[in-house]
Amino acid sequence: MSERKFKQVGTRPIRHDGLEKVTGRANFGADYSLPGMLQGAVLRSPHAHAKIVSIDTSPALEVEGVKAVISGRDFPIPTREGDRQQYGDVPDLANNVIARDKVLYHGHAVAAVAATTIEAAQRGAEKIRVEYEVLPPVLDIESAIAPDAAILHDDLVCQGPAPVPSSPTNVARRTLLSGGDIEQGFADSDVVVEREFTTPMVHQGYIEPHATVVETLENGNVTIWCCTQGPFAVRGLTASVTGIELSKIKVIPSEIGGGFGGKTTIYLEPLAVELSRRSGRPVKLVMSREEVFRATGPTSAGRVRVKMGARKDGRLVAAEVVMYYEAGAFPGSPVGAGCMCALSAYCFDHFVIDGYDVVTTKPRVAAYRAPGAPIAAFGVEQVVDEVAERLGLDPIELRLLNAVQENDVAPYGPKYQAIGFRETLEEARKHPNYSATLGPNQGRGVASGFWFNAGLQSSASVHMNEDGTAIVTTGNPDIGGSRAAQAIMVAEELGIGAEQVVPLVGDTESAGYTDLTGGSRTAYATGMAIIEASQDIVRQLRERAAKIWGVELDGVAWEDGRAVPSNGAASDVEPLNLAEIAAQMGATGGPIVAQAAVSPPMAGPGFATHLCDVEVDQETGKVTVLRYTTVQDAGKAVHPSYVEGQMQGGAAQGIGWALNEEYIFDENGVVENPGFLDYRMPVASDLPMIDTVIVEVANPLHPYGVRGVGETPIVPPLACVANAVAAATGKRFTDLPISPPRVLAAIDGD
Amino acid sequence: MSERKFKQVGTRPIRHDGLEKVTGRANFGADYSLPGMLQGAVLRSPHAHAKIVSIDTSPALEVEGVKAVISGRDFPIPTREGDRQQYGDVPDLANNVIARDKVLYHGHAVAAVAATTIEAAQRGAEKIRVEYEVLPPVLDIESAIAPDAAILHDDLVCQGPAPVPSSPTNVARRTLLSGGDIEQGFADSDVVVEREFTTPMVHQGYIEPHATVVETLENGNVTIWCCTQGPFAVRGLTASVTGIELSKIKVIPSEIGGGFGGKTTIYLEPLAVELSRRSGRPVKLVMSREEVFRATGPTSAGRVRVKMGARKDGRLVAAEVVMYYEAGAFPGSPVGAGCMCALSAYCFDHFVIDGYDVVTTKPRVAAYRAPGAPIAAFGVEQVVDEVAERLGLDPIELRLLNAVQENDVAPYGPKYQAIGFRETLEEARKHPNYSATLGPNQGRGVASGFWFNAGLQSSASVHMNEDGTAIVTTGNPDIGGSRAAQAIMVAEELGIGAEQVVPLVGDTESAGYTDLTGGSRTAYATGMAIIEASQDIVRQLRERAAKIWGVELDGVAWEDGRAVPSNGAASDVEPLNLAEIAAQMGATGGPIVAQAAVSPPMAGPGFATHLCDVEVDQETGKVTVLRYTTVQDAGKAVHPSYVEGQMQGGAAQGIGWALNEEYIFDENGVVENPGFLDYRMPVASDLPMIDTVIVEVANPLHPYGVRGVGETPIVPPLACVANAVAAATGKRFTDLPISPPRVLAAIDGD
Repeated sequence: MSERKFKQVGTRPIRHDGLEKVTGRANFGADYSLPGMLQGAVLRSPHAHAKIVSIDTSPALEVEGVKAVISGRDFPIPTREGDRQQYGDVPDLANNVIARDKVLYHGHAVAAVAATTIEAAQRGAEKIRVEYEVLPPVLDIESAIAPDAAILHDDLVCQGPAPVPSSPTNVARRTLLSGGDIEQGFADSDVVVEREFTTPMVHQGYIEPHATVVETLENGNVTIWCCTQGPFAVRGLTASVTGIELSKIKVIPSEIGGGFGGKTTIYLEPLAVELSRRSGRPVKLVMSREEVFRATGPTSAGRVRVKMGARKDGRLVAAEVVMYYEAGAFPGSPVGAGCMCALSAYCFDHFVIDGYDVVTTKPRVAAYRAPGAPIAAFGVEQVVDEVAERLGLDPIELRLLNAVQENDVAPYGPKYQAIGFRETLEEARKHPNYSATLGPNQGRGVASGFWFNAGLQSSASVHMNEDGTAIVTTGNPDIGGSRAAQAIMVAEELGIGAEQVVPLVGDTESAGYTDLTGGSRTAYATGMAIIEASQDIVRQLRERAAKIWGVELDGVAWEDGRAVPSNGAASDVEPLNLAEIAAQMGATGGPIVAQAAVSPPMAGPGFATHLCDVEVDQETGKVTVLRYTTVQDAGKAVHPSYVEGQMQGGAAQGIGWALNEEYIFDENGVVENPGFLDYRMPVASDLPMIDTVIVEVANPLHPYGVRGVGETPIVPPLACVANAVAAATGKRFTDLPISPPRVLAAIDGD
Repeated sequence: MSERKFKQVGTRPIRHDGLEKVTGRANFGADYSLPGMLQGAVLRSPHAHAKIVSIDTSPALEVEGVKAVISGRDFPIPTREGDRQQYGDVPDLANNVIARDKVLYHGHAVAAVAATTIEAAQRGAEKIRVEYEVLPPVLDIESAIAPDAAILHDDLVCQGPAPVPSSPTNVARRTLLSGGDIEQGFADSDVVVEREFTTPMVHQGYIEPHATVVETLENGNVTIWCCTQGPFAVRGLTASVTGIELSKIKVIPSEIGGGFGGKTTIYLEPLAVELSRRSGRPVKLVMSREEVFRATGPTSAGRVRVKMGARKDGRLVAAEVVMYYEAGAFPGSPVGAGCMCALSAYCFDHFVIDGYDVVTTKPRVAAYRAPGAPIAAFGVEQVVDEVAERLGLDPIELRLLNAVQENDVAPYGPKYQAIGFRETLEEARKHPNYSATLGPNQGRGVASGFWFNAGLQSSASVHMNEDGTAIVTTGNPDIGGSRAAQAIMVAEELGIGAEQVVPLVGDTESAGYTDLTGGSRTAYATGMAIIEASQDIVRQLRERAAKIWGVELDGVAWEDGRAVPSNGAASDVEPLNLAEIAAQMGATGGPIVAQAAVSPPMAGPGFATHLCDVEVDQETGKVTVLRYTTVQDAGKAVHPSYVEGQMQGGAAQGIGWALNEEYIFDENGVVENPGFLDYRMPVASDLPMIDTVIVEVANPLHPYGVRGVGETPIVPPLACVANAVAAATGKRFTDLPISPPRVLAAIDGD
């Protein structure tokens, strides 16, 4: 594999969808419209926690232009089968889409209205009479797990290894991973560092709000246009919530203005379906930014305690990590993934990872880029930093001493195959940014990060056009340049240019079943299906050439986009290029098409090491990032620009999380900053150019060596920035964000 | 094959697209709209034959709302490569889409305008100044082949076997088929009948006018929505005419309100593309009914001379058929297909078939259901009838004496495999309608017909959904119920109900290359691809079951939609149905998808025998069809209702052609009846219920025995009606239509 000379993989063609996007021609979720379409509005709960005593929707119907009104009573009551699973529990999902008996967060959908204008829909929604019995909000982990806590779900039974809290409880699940003898480990350590960390609820902050247009027909067929990372997930979940047969639903994904995990589930789609069914007209529902903040899925607030022991020589010996993640209104925080990632970068002979999924009266969390891992790494990587500091070791040196490598076993079970963690540390150590001179009030931080990367299911089809160009279709919306990667992979196999390949995002009918764009699985898993289908095309092209030349298949080789004679066969013939063979498809056996499906194992562990230099303004407490360097093992970068883009984007989001972002709730559980003016995300002028170094240690699971790259880069920055601020100020910041007031308070505390 | 017990094939499920169509929800060509879309209008020639001296489009641009104006000069000049082929010659096609140097028929497109409203576009078109040098029209075969004829194309060279007319000429091609010794044949005959027949130009009369919406993007990508029988043909032809790369064009077929061959080529699409490119906005072009009549492709007017000899015992000995078909403005009449079909139903030891393709200043012809065959059969089947009459034989008896059967050789070359012609004659003879009592002024006609049926290229994909339903996608627009046939074939293979299959019409990107819906090839050729893909799905389902059971593949059989143990393997396991296996796709190897492509030989010869009873009103000359019976070999009827629908529809069109339909041109070549009030097609009240008898002689080329059925039924009616009128009146009608004035004149001539 490592011997293969790539011709297209590793090049940087212009993305196929670039011009459409920069000219504003591309259609995003809210850009769809249909004749006769109604506009919808959602009535949302004004309370964070309340029983719904009654709903009277009839006054809405009296508003001129209103054509349909629905509430939770208009949906089937889904039955729970067994354990509540992350993202998968249908009753929880259904209740999150629209409340039935209880509202569980401020902004929880209670009813929805469709009308001829958005204003009429909103007036209709305002007329709906809802009687609530208000209950106490549950706004943090402490109050959620307190003995006298208000209980969100009477039927909640905590899952996981004993001991777990008995019902009634707000703790939904315990995850426990352990190895060795933790007490002995700490006893064997020369130095032990223990700290507790907190991170607030933060939002992915995708530019595009959720939007959908739904058309229903008399025969029960439903077409859903929406911005999503997973059209097949939207289809399956909407079928579950509405009770409509899956085969009657078609989901057409729009272009997507960011998702980062937040567009892997459904909010508006079942409401629009039901409004359309009742009105007999297409219905559009578009969230405002405020609704996005109040009622979609941010990621967990977390509380993480890390205790770590090391020997004087720098060898890490033992670690204990206890993590509480807020799930919001329904079970399903990413604490399980946090547990998988917390200690997976280093070899500990003795470890305990103990994670708790806790419900609170806040928006239900959704996936956010490497879900759960940054929260864990914020604690672990700071403690590693502090261990190095206590031992007087260079932080990269300490990490190299303890870094996992091939054949080490991850805490969550598997044995690593070839991985590039050490290579990222070595590249970081020799990067000029690691030896740049620092001035006063400046500091440098180092942190590493791990993400396991998903596999899941993918399909791909490749069709030859009669002019020798090719079409490749998958079911993965293009979030980060996957169309270009698709085209490159086909081009590599066929021996043509990437611009001769048309890469398409299919809908749930034109593409074979494909899991979501996420988990850093698309270039890996869907790529495997694309490569397999492309190799099938090449085999067919060779067959056609063999037929034209009158030789056996093994008398034809495929080189540089041409059939050439091999094995001494037909050596008197001229090579046939792809266009020449394609032009003769009809006469040589018909269309040349191929389709492949895969369900590979996880996408190969991804490791990164980041460097951060900051300067701390002593008067305002403002932290300025001076340099930021990301080094990551991509296995093989199919389109290096988009790998670099992922690395830069993940770092930027992590820096925002570290320095500024947080949901601020009042005492009633109302988000006080539901907009980009008050919820402060970094903009271009807040950041330096983020430097990137791609390391390529081939992933043995993939034919090109590709491994997932999209999520790992958000794992290190929280700790990396904190380590840099600690270096600049001499203060450890254990609570995010490291915002000016908090920094100022720490400095002034001197 | 004949042993196979079908469970789904041969049933009559409700068509999957039925409700959408009857409720008006289905989107036809003119139903598409895009934001910012412009409306277009086409300026058409007021002359049947003229040189274009100059065009000044600039005044159009001064009209408020006009955004773009184009003429022929705005398109590339296509170069001719070799012979002009039927439908395939790019320069002829390009010149038919929009005139360059000459206009060749009244209504020929000369320029086009796009504007914010249709009124502004029409006003703009009226302002365009075109200077013409008017030339003499050429309106029939006689004047076209006369020595002093006005010549349409200076560069036209007649192709075909010598002797052919020398250039300049209006004869584009001669087709000659012969066998035996024709002079000897007639010498050996006891009776010889010779007559000359004419048929007028007639239109397919599809309900839906041509319509297209085109969007072009800055990156050169073009999306074309249109009503077409062949989205891949539209893509390829539009690429040729506009010079745009094929891979940049996407064609999305709408539902289609009838085509009958008339929607196999392009008219509006390149104009809309160019208008959209120039205006930077989407452009819609919709023809009026008048434009459809004046400027789309009807079928040829024809002049056919038939001379036939037979022995006293009823054995046909010799036949000579000379056929002139009008091609309209550019070469490409279906005279070649007429030659193939003329004598293919009977065994003649001695024959000559001599066909001529003649250009005239009329709309360029397009395909019309069994193109060319009805015109030939109108002559041949009347002469056969007259031979039977002269010999005192029952017309079915005579046909049975001479009917081709397996191993006979068709005049155009191939040896017949199993065919059902004799079976249609026998079924017709024993049908009650053949012995029903006739009253005064009533008569009964018999005629048979042959169509060879096409094969061409098709692709199909089948995807399993996770709930056990399936999606099947092909590139064939559904004209006559092909979605239902698609679903039935998948259901048959998978062992599920047809309603559990979602049959889809793909676009040129979601479907693999597929030739047009036409030639009676869809259920046959595309069906073969569907069956092959479905069988691949079944193999994968067996593989999954084998994996679940831990047995080898041959330990699993597929029966009634379930995997069951076979070969004694795993006999302790429970059968797994499709839904159970589909639910485990992810864990057993990923999505279950399959794709197949075929390029089979011709679809198996189709034969039909029709019976017609008429009554002739002696006062008005009006012919009323009392009974009409169609008997046809379908090979195997996948969905018998749609086979019957094809038989009835073809008969109805043929009856219209026989009795009423005709283009009426004035002396300047202007169509005088370009609307359904004056161009008289039969409506429901004009026709009796058309009785159908499906004969099934399995086609050995197809796994179910399917043969094409869509075209054969239009072949017999012209002669069948004429034979009935002859029986009722004692007069031979050799010129169509057999309209009241013509009948009255014949009766009054007594």
